[in-house]
Amino acid sequence: MIHGGDVYTDGILKGIELLDYSSNINPLGIPYSFINNINSAINNLVRYPDIEYRKVKYSLKEYTNVSSEEFFVLGNGAAEIIDLAISMLKRILIVVPSFVEYEINAKKWGCKIEYSHLIERNYDKTLHDFTYDYKDILNKLKYVDGIIIGHPNNPNGSIIDKDEFKNILMYCENNGKIIIVDEAFIEFTGNIDDSFISEVEKYKCLIIIRALTKFFSMPGIRFGYGISSNKKLVELIKMRQNPWNINAFAEVAVQNVLKDKEYIHNTLEWIREEKEFMIDKLKRIYFINKVYRTNVNYVLCETKNIDCYKLYEECLKRNILIRMADNYRGLDKYYVRFAIKDRESNVRFLNVLSSI
Amino acid sequence: MIHGGDVYTDGILKGIELLDYSSNINPLGIPYSFINNINSAINNLVRYPDIEYRKVKYSLKEYTNVSSEEFFVLGNGAAEIIDLAISMLKRILIVVPSFVEYEINAKKWGCKIEYSHLIERNYDKTLHDFTYDYKDILNKLKYVDGIIIGHPNNPNGSIIDKDEFKNILMYCENNGKIIIVDEAFIEFTGNIDDSFISEVEKYKCLIIIRALTKFFSMPGIRFGYGISSNKKLVELIKMRQNPWNINAFAEVAVQNVLKDKEYIHNTLEWIREEKEFMIDKLKRIYFINKVYRTNVNYVLCETKNIDCYKLYEECLKRNILIRMADNYRGLDKYYVRFAIKDRESNVRFLNVLSSI
Repeated sequence: MIHGGDVYTDGILKGIELLDYSSNINPLGIPYSFINNINSAINNLVRYPDIEYRKVKYSLKEYTNVSSEEFFVLGNGAAEIIDLAISMLKRILIVVPSFVEYEINAKKWGCKIEYSHLIERNYDKTLHDFTYDYKDILNKLKYVDGIIIGHPNNPNGSIIDKDEFKNILMYCENNGKIIIVDEAFIEFTGNIDDSFISEVEKYKCLIIIRALTKFFSMPGIRFGYGISSNKKLVELIKMRQNPWNINAFAEVAVQNVLKDKEYIHNTLEWIREEKEFMIDKLKRIYFINKVYRTNVNYVLCETKNIDCYKLYEECLKRNILIRMADNYRGLDKYYVRFAIKDRESNVRFLNVLSSI
Repeated sequence: MIHGGDVYTDGILKGIELLDYSSNINPLGIPYSFINNINSAINNLVRYPDIEYRKVKYSLKEYTNVSSEEFFVLGNGAAEIIDLAISMLKRILIVVPSFVEYEINAKKWGCKIEYSHLIERNYDKTLHDFTYDYKDILNKLKYVDGIIIGHPNNPNGSIIDKDEFKNILMYCENNGKIIIVDEAFIEFTGNIDDSFISEVEKYKCLIIIRALTKFFSMPGIRFGYGISSNKKLVELIKMRQNPWNINAFAEVAVQNVLKDKEYIHNTLEWIREEKEFMIDKLKRIYFINKVYRTNVNYVLCETKNIDCYKLYEECLKRNILIRMADNYRGLDKYYVRFAIKDRESNVRFLNVLSSI
């Protein structure tokens, strides 16, 4: 298992309903603003999508508040854009631990890989923190063509300090390096200023990647997008893509959910409350050695006395799926990542942890 | 315009409803067997799809009657599989005129390209025919790693004579060459024995590509698949793919429409009647010089006194979109391709042609 979210192997395909704490999806579920408009997708199915996806790009422009539709490149999930952005680099710096696909993609394209490890610190008396090593990143950029960085980072939920990052941005802009910022989870921070979209028009070195997957709770719809004011980069990525890579349902979803203010509001209310609740409770579980600070809807923890394999098994016996984090580069078998869900699920989950 | 089916630029985005004779989609529309089960797709949306797509592959195995799910590789439309199959070849033979993406993909991957041109003959007194040049193909295979061949071929609708093709199959099997057979339209011939699926277990050189797009009238759903008993080839293609490349709606569609016997039956009844009707009528249009024999739901024609640009314009004025076929390698500005639709549309279309 290299990803979270496999509720099939031990669940659905055996007829068992699992509570999925392994993948990080908004528990508010599919926005009604999509479901209420699904008929227009059904009506569009018999046609090829607009090969230029003009309406989709217009919606993205409105949502992200950038000045041109030409900044966008669309993907069958963020996975496609991550893969193609990485394919542009011969030598890449990957900030780790992070989403395992970065490394898989880089190897697939034969990139030479450098790593910059997060550094650990105490955030306060009870909370640990993994943060970016800005100096190390700046040093290592000399030896690569670009960097990919999770923001918020997965599996720990850290976000970039923009002041600290300024030197990196400037260096990359002046030296023709590419910065791939994976913002798949950014909306969960609740602060739009956290995003690097506000920098994208100024810095051509930036490409930001986002998706409907996490915040809008639609991993099954397969829609992601890249944003860059670097026309050449956008064109090179497009040249590697196949036509009609976005399905008719994703087209309709984009045009509706991004302007669903009620859904966005409710999500931010939920995460604000539940993040605090979960972190507070997790600190009290006896086999959890460290809880890491997070800005989003998942929490990285280090265990003691029980490793992630055993904990996975114990949770699975109780019909809960968790994410063993031992296959993240730099982490070991004492790391696990938990989703944050609605209160009822969280209580059930915490009770299960307490019972182990 | 390099593809058919752009009803957006001159139609939808200007608020004009066009009758689309440029793309070749089953006019019976989306199968109810999909629509009736759409709720299960909606329920699945909040989860990542099964990364192995086990149920989807089972349905494909049942439909195609091959012996193993392992023969399948799934794509976000046939376009993805065509692209990745071509990427396996350093030197490729393309049978032309054919789907323009073959050449675009081959160039993208830096393949050295050889061409084998269809040869023209009179089929009978009133019908022309473009057919494969089997001898030329066999000769040229020496200089390449593999071949891609449309079957039925687009834009003319020819199918392969299996007896004539036998030597080619044997040669490729014995010399490590790959044969990519694009069967996107094969079900329209009405004869399952036309397909090369029956040869796929015997010949490891074969990879067959299909989709839900044309026959099941769902270009918007984005689902295609490759079938090969060549495990190494299947694995190499999979290694180039991104995870979760099939969306939740396509998953549900595959599991339902492929066993929709009523839809399949009705489609075959329709095409049998309408193909004859359209061909018969097209022969009588004064500016149509040649009508080409077809086995499927589109007809290639050569015009006289009016070129495809002018004909396109005249049709567009009357709210009908046609496919200019001048950008197919080997064809010129006197070629057009027409879809075959339901009787009512066909009559309207033929009346428009007669009025020009």
